[in-house]
Amino acid sequence: MASSILAHGIPVDPPSPAIRAEADERLAGLATPPGALGRLGELGVWVAATQGQLPPAPVENVRAVVFAGDHGVAAHGVSAFPSAVTPAMVRTFLSGRAGVSALANAHGVSVRVLDIAVDDDLDGVDPEVQRFKVRRSSRPLHLEDALTAEETQAALDAGATVAAEEIALGAQLLISGDMGIGNTTPAAALIASSYGLPASEVTGRGTGIDDSSLIAKQELIQLALDRTGDLAAFETLAALGGADLAASVGFMVAAARAGVPVLLDGVIAVACAVIADRLAPGAAAWFAAGHRSTEPAQSLALEKLGLEPILDLGMRLGEGSGAVAAVPVVRSAAALLRDVALLSELAL
Amino acid sequence: MASSILAHGIPVDPPSPAIRAEADERLAGLATPPGALGRLGELGVWVAATQGQLPPAPVENVRAVVFAGDHGVAAHGVSAFPSAVTPAMVRTFLSGRAGVSALANAHGVSVRVLDIAVDDDLDGVDPEVQRFKVRRSSRPLHLEDALTAEETQAALDAGATVAAEEIALGAQLLISGDMGIGNTTPAAALIASSYGLPASEVTGRGTGIDDSSLIAKQELIQLALDRTGDLAAFETLAALGGADLAASVGFMVAAARAGVPVLLDGVIAVACAVIADRLAPGAAAWFAAGHRSTEPAQSLALEKLGLEPILDLGMRLGEGSGAVAAVPVVRSAAALLRDVALLSELAL
Repeated sequence: MASSILAHGIPVDPPSPAIRAEADERLAGLATPPGALGRLGELGVWVAATQGQLPPAPVENVRAVVFAGDHGVAAHGVSAFPSAVTPAMVRTFLSGRAGVSALANAHGVSVRVLDIAVDDDLDGVDPEVQRFKVRRSSRPLHLEDALTAEETQAALDAGATVAAEEIALGAQLLISGDMGIGNTTPAAALIASSYGLPASEVTGRGTGIDDSSLIAKQELIQLALDRTGDLAAFETLAALGGADLAASVGFMVAAARAGVPVLLDGVIAVACAVIADRLAPGAAAWFAAGHRSTEPAQSLALEKLGLEPILDLGMRLGEGSGAVAAVPVVRSAAALLRDVALLSELAL
Repeated sequence: MASSILAHGIPVDPPSPAIRAEADERLAGLATPPGALGRLGELGVWVAATQGQLPPAPVENVRAVVFAGDHGVAAHGVSAFPSAVTPAMVRTFLSGRAGVSALANAHGVSVRVLDIAVDDDLDGVDPEVQRFKVRRSSRPLHLEDALTAEETQAALDAGATVAAEEIALGAQLLISGDMGIGNTTPAAALIASSYGLPASEVTGRGTGIDDSSLIAKQELIQLALDRTGDLAAFETLAALGGADLAASVGFMVAAARAGVPVLLDGVIAVACAVIADRLAPGAAAWFAAGHRSTEPAQSLALEKLGLEPILDLGMRLGEGSGAVAAVPVVRSAAALLRDVALLSELAL
């Protein structure tokens, strides 16, 4: 599916410039001191522009999809946890007791979990969860390409299909969540490769590795970068990403092309956003940054994308949790631009 | 009323140390990497300790009270807006179209507005709004004490009564909002006097004054500080506060003594929290900081109180808006500590 949606290098139309201009004017005319809403003002303008509608509609239907997958690198000392945690956490999502589940339940956000490349058969789970499975684990990216071109395309297509399905269910805002032991390694590698940064600037502690593992992780990422050199976006994703990340990229590109905004989570989602914006130039205008994670690569990439995180709470859980936690702030921004009186209406 | 509740200098019992310890343990046992929830983890522990209950209950019933009042200093060049805006904004609150109304409506928070010292008769508004009115405007604090001792006590009592009423309505979390042209001047003065700081460190732009007004405001605050010197908490509030601020102080002290947590807004609420914690030592353990405002005195006082703001969005609207915007984050924190699976429950 979606070959035109995922065609490389074709620019994405931005959120409505006309509505953006009108929204700026409305913001300036609210019965509040100029600038007093701070970032909530700008965020409300962005919501209106993505909706092509002023005042913006309430952001009620928010849908998160967790793309789960394992990574060959996890067996090479880059993670504090074994890959067996990935299928266990998929089951925890399905029972509604993961971190993102708790947040989503508190804020009326739907969560769907998909096994894209978990290194387990997940016996007994709803087959729908494995409908888009590309393979069991992606290959160790410091030794060989994580995915073949065919696998990369299959994962991109899967993400695009999932985005279309969520949009058909009325999604006004989409979130891409992640689950996969070892996944901060490909995320950091994708960001480093895209911006020509050394491993030393992008490597973080993930779920909480110690100093010696941090050094090993950095060396592994540098090996991967040295192995691949500069590549085009699709090839970068195949070489240094993974099937779960490629599905997330397809999801984001499809959302942007369909004119549905995406709230980004931590380093995994932001790495996917970087690749999405390279594959589909301008896609990042449809993205807002939900939170600042503790991973250095995330902050670096957000700066390059021109995105300022909404929350800064020291979270590093993944799963889409930081984005879901930021959803009420997006709703606040839309509510202010929609419901606050205009100065011209005030009896003064 | 409430003479014992507002008696000076009697320490406030802290949130449950036993539940805090148990909550710390539960947090460490969640099926998330250690520390991965960042500040949401600590905040959930605080919620549980204030509730004396683990897992914490959902924070559903959140109630904001806006204490409105004018200030004699507003006629002396410290504000970008005239005092006539205060009654106009009271009417805007009552019509549900102020900034805090929009946020409260989006997040299921109740808002009550009270005229404590508005310089207007507010003809035609529900008499309930003026039930606790102390006077029309507080006196210009650089020239004379803002309030008499009797007025200060009346305002403190009013706030304590209002807190008791909101608690009787089931409040699980209280917010004190403000409305009053000129009110960042007494707020900055209260903070400066409490911590022995010069006016130059606490004076901010409020609703957006220009450079020359900023200098005039700083000089006025310094005059007020020089006029009063060091004073006990009650006398500081009378000399440099105002009736609306005193009501907010009474509200916060009564909440802390009743064991109901308070989410602080911007510089006005934080100045009141400083006085509340001086009147009732330990009260601040019942307070969390909703957001970082752009007023320098707010950040200074939060640091002294040991409170780290939840949101940092460059807001400076007042009204309780920053605290209401932070309510969903408090709910997120409680939901995580309550609903996430324990590691011991996971099939690994």
